[in-house]
Amino acid sequence: MVSQQATRLVAGTPAIAAAHFVAEADPYDSMSNPDGYVNVGTAENRLVWDMLGPRLCAARAVTAADVRYAPLHGTVALRSQVARFLARGGAPIDPEDLVVVSGATAALDIIASVLCDPGEALAVPVPYYGALDTDLTGRSGARLVPVPPLAGAPLPDAAAVVDTVRRARSAGTTVRALVLTSPHNPLGLIYRETELRAFASACAALDLDLIADEVYAHCAFAGPAFVSARDAASGPLDPQRVHVVWGFAKDLGLPGLKVGVLHTRQPQVRVAARELAYFAPVSTDTQWLLTELLAADDWTVQFLTTSRNRLAASYAAAAGHLTAAGVPFRPAEAGFSIWTDLRGWLDAASPEAERLLWQRLFRSGRINLLPGAVFHHPEPGWFRLCHTTDPATVAEAVARLRHVLGDSTTAFPPR
Amino acid sequence: MVSQQATRLVAGTPAIAAAHFVAEADPYDSMSNPDGYVNVGTAENRLVWDMLGPRLCAARAVTAADVRYAPLHGTVALRSQVARFLARGGAPIDPEDLVVVSGATAALDIIASVLCDPGEALAVPVPYYGALDTDLTGRSGARLVPVPPLAGAPLPDAAAVVDTVRRARSAGTTVRALVLTSPHNPLGLIYRETELRAFASACAALDLDLIADEVYAHCAFAGPAFVSARDAASGPLDPQRVHVVWGFAKDLGLPGLKVGVLHTRQPQVRVAARELAYFAPVSTDTQWLLTELLAADDWTVQFLTTSRNRLAASYAAAAGHLTAAGVPFRPAEAGFSIWTDLRGWLDAASPEAERLLWQRLFRSGRINLLPGAVFHHPEPGWFRLCHTTDPATVAEAVARLRHVLGDSTTAFPPR
Repeated sequence: MVSQQATRLVAGTPAIAAAHFVAEADPYDSMSNPDGYVNVGTAENRLVWDMLGPRLCAARAVTAADVRYAPLHGTVALRSQVARFLARGGAPIDPEDLVVVSGATAALDIIASVLCDPGEALAVPVPYYGALDTDLTGRSGARLVPVPPLAGAPLPDAAAVVDTVRRARSAGTTVRALVLTSPHNPLGLIYRETELRAFASACAALDLDLIADEVYAHCAFAGPAFVSARDAASGPLDPQRVHVVWGFAKDLGLPGLKVGVLHTRQPQVRVAARELAYFAPVSTDTQWLLTELLAADDWTVQFLTTSRNRLAASYAAAAGHLTAAGVPFRPAEAGFSIWTDLRGWLDAASPEAERLLWQRLFRSGRINLLPGAVFHHPEPGWFRLCHTTDPATVAEAVARLRHVLGDSTTAFPPR
Repeated sequence: MVSQQATRLVAGTPAIAAAHFVAEADPYDSMSNPDGYVNVGTAENRLVWDMLGPRLCAARAVTAADVRYAPLHGTVALRSQVARFLARGGAPIDPEDLVVVSGATAALDIIASVLCDPGEALAVPVPYYGALDTDLTGRSGARLVPVPPLAGAPLPDAAAVVDTVRRARSAGTTVRALVLTSPHNPLGLIYRETELRAFASACAALDLDLIADEVYAHCAFAGPAFVSARDAASGPLDPQRVHVVWGFAKDLGLPGLKVGVLHTRQPQVRVAARELAYFAPVSTDTQWLLTELLAADDWTVQFLTTSRNRLAASYAAAAGHLTAAGVPFRPAEAGFSIWTDLRGWLDAASPEAERLLWQRLFRSGRINLLPGAVFHHPEPGWFRLCHTTDPATVAEAVARLRHVLGDSTTAFPPR
């Protein structure tokens, strides 16, 4: 009845979505639903609606022409504004090199489908955003080759990419590109320009394209300024081999609008990406809204500044709660989450122990946060805690965490 | 550089889109651009903006919750309204059986991908909407088996489907489903309930699913009332094997919004379709708008009644111009176009002669209308003329047609 290609997709559904909707159906509220789920699993920026609301609710000067068939890779008007927006502080972007589609997921699917035939592979350093498994492989038929760190290194670097890709090729796998999330999701780290250049050099040496998922580009609140791979990698690597994905979900706080962008300077890739955009276009109604949003420079600057300040404050508050609770974590520089170290509360250093702790946190604590396994983290015991929601919810999440962890019989002493 | 799967897609680009954008870049206007293209090739209903404008331009009571992640197969609110809307005059529809995605194209791609593995086939009576070639096969890897009429019959009927599918199977092809456009695009005919039941019986006998593309459901302005395959085919065929595609482009006059709907009552198909919807979701901003639009019953009834009256008037005017110009056509009952008979002006009864006439009309006449070849019509010389634009443009189109045709040296006398 159902095709094999669809059956494979059903089997590969990521856990992220399911937990999100269970938690959202019964959300914590200190007054009305104190026993509800605290959702620190979903990477949404809920700190910026006061700035967005007036723009989204306003009357719109839409005309008849705005609801007609438009180019299916995005209107000229929106692509022009996105080009301006993304080029801040870097080289100019040609709007013709942008493909606007219904979500960063669609943009990732498209670049994977354009670069890979079924069975061909993309290398991805671990840990990585878990939904990449579906986004990059679900429809394209590509597969992911995880890049672990080299012995002794804390994280995979360019040398690790070279090592993994050479091994994969020796084993007969065709590897087409390296995929980075930059800033890093889930670690919340900003890649240094030297790191990006090293990855780019590795790509050049290995004859790989580079795909950079930069959906958190404007969510950097500490550390060095964010640098796009489009600027940093071009030089060591042919600019036509650098493909950047961006979207309105994180930087503009509009995840429900499902608007993603692919930037590519390779003419054939661009033609093919436009063809695939035919299957995932964005409503011209929403494109009109986003064009207006980005066209107002004063608003955009103010929004990004305020958003960055609020992200920093939210992060500081959450980090404070964790420190006070005696829960270690890895300091973050960007994004919506804290990579939280619950290794000390596992019954054993095993994936199964991590799964059991996650289950206990979800069921007993009614806390929705995601375990490292979702992000292919090689070492069990790390969890991604998203803090960009109302401060009472974050405080409640850490209080519950402390409560559930306090009940543990631990084999490993907390540090 | 570019994958084989993407290269195949680029090679198969339909001519429709290209001609549309060339013509739209330089549009006819009796005052400001009298030498521009007259566009009677694009199936848009441009007669209803006065009713839509106030709704689309109004302030929106969107809340923070409306821009968060939502179910990727459509919000509960929109699916409930669409279920109500589509069930008018027929059996109730469960909103859980609806999958809302970014366009009818995406909905067609999804049902083809769920029912077919690459190489498997869908049977489609000719002529058929040309973009089905891309929509149903471009990403799914399925292929289409055209169903020609049986000898002596004007159009393919259920017996023709049986004949074609049996032949295809004898030749080793796995055929999974029959695809109908209902009302028929490009012919503008409303299938009678007896015809739909006969197609459904053929599907049951052949072990086929039935996919009905009903995007013109509410564009029937003459002849009998439209009956959905969801109602007519259920009985002769297991209702779980009837899958209906609908969208806001034609019936609501909102093609740029790219919102399509798949209705299926087969649980596994539904699960798989939801997974595929993950790659082609609709902006919650636009979903909010459409929910409000359909929730206002008074407005909907008034809109559909007025739209139908305007379609009938537009058709009558265009038919009058053609008759006055001595150009024969096939009477239509639904849709935006007239199937126009230019056989008498071909230099020969060949596809090449049709192509040359099309080129002459486009280049000398600057008329954008589509030749029968785009719709896989077996007999050369038919063209689809869309009349649902401003009356002066339609009058100009027929005047130019007459002018270009009058210049012809014809091998066949006009009838």
